[in-house]
Amino acid sequence: MKYCSQCGHSVGLIIPEGDNRERFVCGQCSVIHYQNPRIVAGSLPTYDNKVLLCKRAIEPQLGYWTLPAGFMENDETTLEAAIRETTEEANAKIDIQELYTLINVAHINQVHLFYRATLIDLDFYAGQESLDVALFAEKDIPWEDIAFPTVKETLKFYFSDRKLNEFPLRTKDIKRFKS
Amino acid sequence: MKYCSQCGHSVGLIIPEGDNRERFVCGQCSVIHYQNPRIVAGSLPTYDNKVLLCKRAIEPQLGYWTLPAGFMENDETTLEAAIRETTEEANAKIDIQELYTLINVAHINQVHLFYRATLIDLDFYAGQESLDVALFAEKDIPWEDIAFPTVKETLKFYFSDRKLNEFPLRTKDIKRFKS
Repeated sequence: MKYCSQCGHSVGLIIPEGDNRERFVCGQCSVIHYQNPRIVAGSLPTYDNKVLLCKRAIEPQLGYWTLPAGFMENDETTLEAAIRETTEEANAKIDIQELYTLINVAHINQVHLFYRATLIDLDFYAGQESLDVALFAEKDIPWEDIAFPTVKETLKFYFSDRKLNEFPLRTKDIKRFKS
Repeated sequence: MKYCSQCGHSVGLIIPEGDNRERFVCGQCSVIHYQNPRIVAGSLPTYDNKVLLCKRAIEPQLGYWTLPAGFMENDETTLEAAIRETTEEANAKIDIQELYTLINVAHINQVHLFYRATLIDLDFYAGQESLDVALFAEKDIPWEDIAFPTVKETLKFYFSDRKLNEFPLRTKDIKRFKS
């Protein structure tokens, strides 16, 4: 950030009065430009013991497999975001269930939320951001080609919890990127 | 948003190629300025069947009571944010437990997360953003003077769940502001 989005003047990094950390503050209109983490919301759609994954058509991690997920937008809830992303990336109709994983990725200022879901039918197909969409049994999951660590962790939690058929909220902090 | 924070040129609202909603896009350097919801993280600190509340020293809702909570910062996890806010607003030392409520407030682009916590001692005192910090038994909760609906909902969930001493993740969507 170099310029004030309100008045166009240049901004500087200072600690505002009453605050305890540096913020971008406008030298002209004094607006403080806070920067905060973003939420990535998605789903873990399953059908007959198989999990739906999308092959990414865009960077980052083009060609790698992911659960349908993306940045939460303004004016929607976390659950609406998870459903929207599942529609956009996989054109999949789902019955969405409870929040299943909350994974912090602090070094890139993101919090990832995945909801469990059941596919309503098999009429899914790749959206603009996907090259392919497919169902995978546990033994066929392409573990080496999973796009993001939060997706890999969510899948690991799922296959482990499925043995007892109990799916409490799972949380984890990912310290640095490893695909 | 009127000006590009990268180059200072004016921005316009357009739907970028491959997107499906309007974004602020710079007319000169073409940077897309996404806007996303923010996370408010806090705690529900208890001690001997009482709940810790803070009387707000700042707007909005100055003079009203809240659980310690605030905007999550970059470079921290949701749990770290909840602990930090509890320290800043109440100087309270807590053993933090599991995530307890996730409440969407879509019309103001916020997601509120409250963790259950146990006070380690009673040496708490008001921080800069609080006028007072106090413990309340259920019968003494100032329901009419609670600062935010997400705090009120979290307290209601807690006193209800406490009867069975079971505290599953509770979720709710708040449709519009009512204090």
